[in-house]
Amino acid sequence: MRINKKEAMSTMKAAVYLRPGKIAIEEKPVPVPGPGEALIKITTTTICGTDIHILKGEYPVKPGLTIGHEPVGVIAALGAGVTGYELGQRVVVGAISPCGQCYSCLDGQQSQCGGKPAGGWRFGNTIDGCQAEYLLVPYAMSNLEVIPEGLTDEQVLMCPDIMSTGFGGAESGDIKIGDTVVIFAQGPIGLCATAGAKLRGASLIIAVDGVSSRLEMAKTLGADITIDYTKTDPLTEIMRLTQGRGVDVAIEALGTQATFESCLRALKPGGRLSSLGVYSGKLSLPLDAFAAGLGDHKIITTLCPGGKDRMRRLMNVVKSGRVKLDAMVTHRFKLDDIEQAYDLFANQRDGVLKVAITT
Amino acid sequence: MRINKKEAMSTMKAAVYLRPGKIAIEEKPVPVPGPGEALIKITTTTICGTDIHILKGEYPVKPGLTIGHEPVGVIAALGAGVTGYELGQRVVVGAISPCGQCYSCLDGQQSQCGGKPAGGWRFGNTIDGCQAEYLLVPYAMSNLEVIPEGLTDEQVLMCPDIMSTGFGGAESGDIKIGDTVVIFAQGPIGLCATAGAKLRGASLIIAVDGVSSRLEMAKTLGADITIDYTKTDPLTEIMRLTQGRGVDVAIEALGTQATFESCLRALKPGGRLSSLGVYSGKLSLPLDAFAAGLGDHKIITTLCPGGKDRMRRLMNVVKSGRVKLDAMVTHRFKLDDIEQAYDLFANQRDGVLKVAITT
Amino acid sequence: MRINKKEAMSTMKAAVYLRPGKIAIEEKPVPVPGPGEALIKITTTTICGTDIHILKGEYPVKPGLTIGHEPVGVIAALGAGVTGYELGQRVVVGAISPCGQCYSCLDGQQSQCGGKPAGGWRFGNTIDGCQAEYLLVPYAMSNLEVIPEGLTDEQVLMCPDIMSTGFGGAESGDIKIGDTVVIFAQGPIGLCATAGAKLRGASLIIAVDGVSSRLEMAKTLGADITIDYTKTDPLTEIMRLTQGRGVDVAIEALGTQATFESCLRALKPGGRLSSLGVYSGKLSLPLDAFAAGLGDHKIITTLCPGGKDRMRRLMNVVKSGRVKLDAMVTHRFKLDDIEQAYDLFANQRDGVLKVAITT
Amino acid sequence: MRINKKEAMSTMKAAVYLRPGKIAIEEKPVPVPGPGEALIKITTTTICGTDIHILKGEYPVKPGLTIGHEPVGVIAALGAGVTGYELGQRVVVGAISPCGQCYSCLDGQQSQCGGKPAGGWRFGNTIDGCQAEYLLVPYAMSNLEVIPEGLTDEQVLMCPDIMSTGFGGAESGDIKIGDTVVIFAQGPIGLCATAGAKLRGASLIIAVDGVSSRLEMAKTLGADITIDYTKTDPLTEIMRLTQGRGVDVAIEALGTQATFESCLRALKPGGRLSSLGVYSGKLSLPLDAFAAGLGDHKIITTLCPGGKDRMRRLMNVVKSGRVKLDAMVTHRFKLDDIEQAYDLFANQRDGVLKVAITT
Repeated sequence: MRINKKEAMSTMKAAVYLRPGKIAIEEKPVPVPGPGEALIKITTTTICGTDIHILKGEYPVKPGLTIGHEPVGVIAALGAGVTGYELGQRVVVGAISPCGQCYSCLDGQQSQCGGKPAGGWRFGNTIDGCQAEYLLVPYAMSNLEVIPEGLTDEQVLMCPDIMSTGFGGAESGDIKIGDTVVIFAQGPIGLCATAGAKLRGASLIIAVDGVSSRLEMAKTLGADITIDYTKTDPLTEIMRLTQGRGVDVAIEALGTQATFESCLRALKPGGRLSSLGVYSGKLSLPLDAFAAGLGDHKIITTLCPGGKDRMRRLMNVVKSGRVKLDAMVTHRFKLDDIEQAYDLFANQRDGVLKVAITT
Repeated sequence: MRINKKEAMSTMKAAVYLRPGKIAIEEKPVPVPGPGEALIKITTTTICGTDIHILKGEYPVKPGLTIGHEPVGVIAALGAGVTGYELGQRVVVGAISPCGQCYSCLDGQQSQCGGKPAGGWRFGNTIDGCQAEYLLVPYAMSNLEVIPEGLTDEQVLMCPDIMSTGFGGAESGDIKIGDTVVIFAQGPIGLCATAGAKLRGASLIIAVDGVSSRLEMAKTLGADITIDYTKTDPLTEIMRLTQGRGVDVAIEALGTQATFESCLRALKPGGRLSSLGVYSGKLSLPLDAFAAGLGDHKIITTLCPGGKDRMRRLMNVVKSGRVKLDAMVTHRFKLDDIEQAYDLFANQRDGVLKVAITT
Repeated sequence: MRINKKEAMSTMKAAVYLRPGKIAIEEKPVPVPGPGEALIKITTTTICGTDIHILKGEYPVKPGLTIGHEPVGVIAALGAGVTGYELGQRVVVGAISPCGQCYSCLDGQQSQCGGKPAGGWRFGNTIDGCQAEYLLVPYAMSNLEVIPEGLTDEQVLMCPDIMSTGFGGAESGDIKIGDTVVIFAQGPIGLCATAGAKLRGASLIIAVDGVSSRLEMAKTLGADITIDYTKTDPLTEIMRLTQGRGVDVAIEALGTQATFESCLRALKPGGRLSSLGVYSGKLSLPLDAFAAGLGDHKIITTLCPGGKDRMRRLMNVVKSGRVKLDAMVTHRFKLDDIEQAYDLFANQRDGVLKVAITT
Repeated sequence: MRINKKEAMSTMKAAVYLRPGKIAIEEKPVPVPGPGEALIKITTTTICGTDIHILKGEYPVKPGLTIGHEPVGVIAALGAGVTGYELGQRVVVGAISPCGQCYSCLDGQQSQCGGKPAGGWRFGNTIDGCQAEYLLVPYAMSNLEVIPEGLTDEQVLMCPDIMSTGFGGAESGDIKIGDTVVIFAQGPIGLCATAGAKLRGASLIIAVDGVSSRLEMAKTLGADITIDYTKTDPLTEIMRLTQGRGVDVAIEALGTQATFESCLRALKPGGRLSSLGVYSGKLSLPLDAFAAGLGDHKIITTLCPGGKDRMRRLMNVVKSGRVKLDAMVTHRFKLDDIEQAYDLFANQRDGVLKVAITT
């Protein structure tokens, strides 16, 4: 194992889930990478909507777990068998960290690694995450991606999760040149889906939300039309805009019955519903909108694609300047102050979109 | 227009929907084909599960409409502009009769012809159907397909609907070589989906039903394993058979919450649910089986593909001898006796699978 | 048939192929649309590279044929059975005019309409084309597309052929988000392929040509990097830019051994060669670049997609403002002066890219 | 590392390439698996056409290299980090052994592992192969697949290469239900492509070869029609059988200009050429058959898909009884006599199809 001396045998700060309502900074030992693993010194990370579900106890994780799955950092140590990297390289690691070698990964379903639901999502879910000074990365050969020269931490901060997820929503919707696309909800994921829809060649992109600052950001990222659902009925407006045809693709980016159902109702016969939200409670398929099963509908859910090739591609998009997502960083905190960051983000105050947490 | 004299100016018998619970033979004028249309003398047709929904008033059609969408017959007259056919040729026409020239058809969604939900389904739905002595075929150039020499009416009787639908279920499930597939319900559609799964290279096909004669037929058509759900819990058995992995593809062939939900629960993470059933009442997505939206699931509904190229392909499959679906014809009736046929079929007596109605 | 009086029984001017080297304006009768046909008063059209092949006798057509396949005009008459349109509507018709109802069309291969090679290409090839005052459009229901309000003739002039072809090259290359793409040759088709590659989400687009004005236009339309092959070896430069990986997709837009072969050599193992050129002479696959057949290569040729749904989509892209192709119109002529236009275009003088011909 | 004692520190016999024309048995040390590797005691292997190219010096490998890439054996030792397996388990390893963790593998192009042409083909190419008593398997987690109970070595002997390659040819041809398919050459690979075409739902499968015993085997494996090209002109016959349409898919399974060109000429416009052969010399695309690039052709080459998920799927197909490829084993030899086996196989004597080599 190659390791910098200063990292050995020391402790680090980590944001740890304690109980519903409480995530706090604690001291933990700095992990030591075993074969195939790597240790990353985190330089910047962020908080995801999913972390808020964890904070609130809605998505259960083991008390004591370090939270966070959006790491940007520097290679601090490399376990046996991890080759082609150097200590000190700046890297991004996807929120989803596939092994690459199980049946699911070899079959192209890396997010369902190990054949378990969402099995590729490990950080801050089944193993310690990255809201900490250091992160232990499993399957490092599949997951470490060096940041191209000239890109800042904040420029690549969206790559591990929301850019990959949002773009994935556009990709799973199989958007074709000239398609009409609606995206319901313009939080960070929805905004990235809007950017993704533009990147795939949609000719009319309709973004729906109830917060005007988000709708403005949507315009910047690619929406041709924005609908504030607090003022206008989205379905009426969508049908007007599409001359009654309905949209080719509807992207759900919130995880509620209302947005899911609106997507279905906005679709043309034969349309595609690309679902990104994490649902709770109940979810039903209104049969009128579903044409009783005769409408040649497709409903596709997408969990954030990960792995180093995905990160390479996304960072190349950032580098190309085609999409600028760093404008979504509205607030900045030190790791020590992460509880304040959670408070702000959980309560959606001050027009927060994404926070940058530095160490 | 080319037309045989005897067809001109006469009347015919037709099975007409009158009111909930009542379909009866009535006299109607023999239609005269306009430009682009053709008149078919029906030789054999059949009753579909959907016709039973119509009979019961569950699927509303206009009183007075001739029912039936599975025509086998002989060309009796050709309207202006219909070229490449001859009077007297034996033909099949799909249950779905796309125009070929609207936006939906040109975009590859022929079943949603005209951009209306299930818009390609015209016969016995929005225009007079084929449980009659004659059938008027719109868009004849897109829809008439000559029966290859040597095939009987009964051999091609499943092509217009159930073979096309069932195979479509296997196709939409994107079955790959070596996939494990379950089909819930082994009525005529489910049996064809079973045959289709075999035709696409699934290596383990599990058929579920509660009627032993249907499960026996499933074995003949390609099922490796059959599960009688009245005796064995299908999900437990499926998980045992797949060593806990779940199936790659689950095909729903009934249209109920129970079968839809069982499909979802039988799937591996990242699996594909191919839905063929016509649903009524309510349909919900159980979020545990749906991995809260994080499971990379695909849900695809398929309405019977139609058009003459589809019919050509299906009849070629019949001709190849790879699949023998005429064994599904368990009972035979004359058109005059179609009310008895409805009675038998609606009540699923005498092990009926499909009835052949001849004129 | 609905027809304006003034069009009936009159004659019109048409650019007719006479013999190798000679296309000239002649008088012809204005056609009268039969069932399913429409008559278009041409307002603007253009000359294609293929027309130059015809002029030179390299692509043989019947002497006396009217040339041209890129029509923009106004509906002057509608044959029986053509519904949903009005006389006087401004329309675009694709260079490829599929029937929508043959086996090939119903199977999604509209450009090979009738099962004949390039069978969907009729105008100026197998029937009279649009370098004339009037154009007879077969299968009008499949092919007439009304121009959205607010778009000029020149804005939609690229839709019938080069935009559809160039975008088709990007689509057939199956460009994925973050892909690296090279386009060899930046004539009108290659420029549109460059624009198409951007529209599909490529993160690095490399355009190769030897004419600096074309490379400048390529930059405007989406190229990140341009290579003047008269000054720099493209393959060396491509390998440098991709750190030796090769590109994911190479688009051939000229139709020569040199560009085809360069595409193959520029590709990564497993890469996709999307070919748009019309080849003459000989074409060989260099086995070293082809990995002796072991490289998981894909070579896909694309003939301009046509039909009204394609035209609708492309005009929506124009309307969205995402791509501005009218800047490619460098010269303008009256139909009467089309011989001068041919002379200019055939000899590539004055930096000509596309000429607009008005009536 | 877990290892059986008897395997440690000993030597083994291996078939080694010495010089053009000479492969001979030599003694080599039994390899010791490092981290991520496994040692397999070979029980059965076979000789591939590619090995003959190596023998003849047509495909250059390093003198001293152990030849062979079709291993069936028993786990003899497991390196560090290889989990989920037990010593003594019977396993198959694909001819292609992807790492699973490089950019190419994570992007779904496992045969081009490492981004090098055919980079996933290691055994008997870039590292020692399996015509030996023991085989060292790199990336064991991606590549070891346990043989299902009840299957003999000979039943799974085709899985590592020819079954995977031949089926891959059918898969890459994107065969649809009802397609017409021709396979040129019925050696082991072509026969497996024939079986694969049947497994994907082709309704008319035409097999072409000049050896009657191979054509008979083709009939057993799925060919509807066989053509002996020494007696009948295949293209004339194919056009007759398809009523002049041409085939939907043509599979090349030899690697010559003649078969490649015949495939192209047999195709319908818009058809797909799936190429499996390893070409030498020159390869050209006849432009008449290629419609000068306007025919919407697809040419796809496929290198044998590998990895444990592929092996799992293929062995499941064997287990299902759908395809019986062990009938292709016509001769059996001990490893000591492998030079005789090469002599027989290279000269195609005694109707040899595949030889089984046991240790």
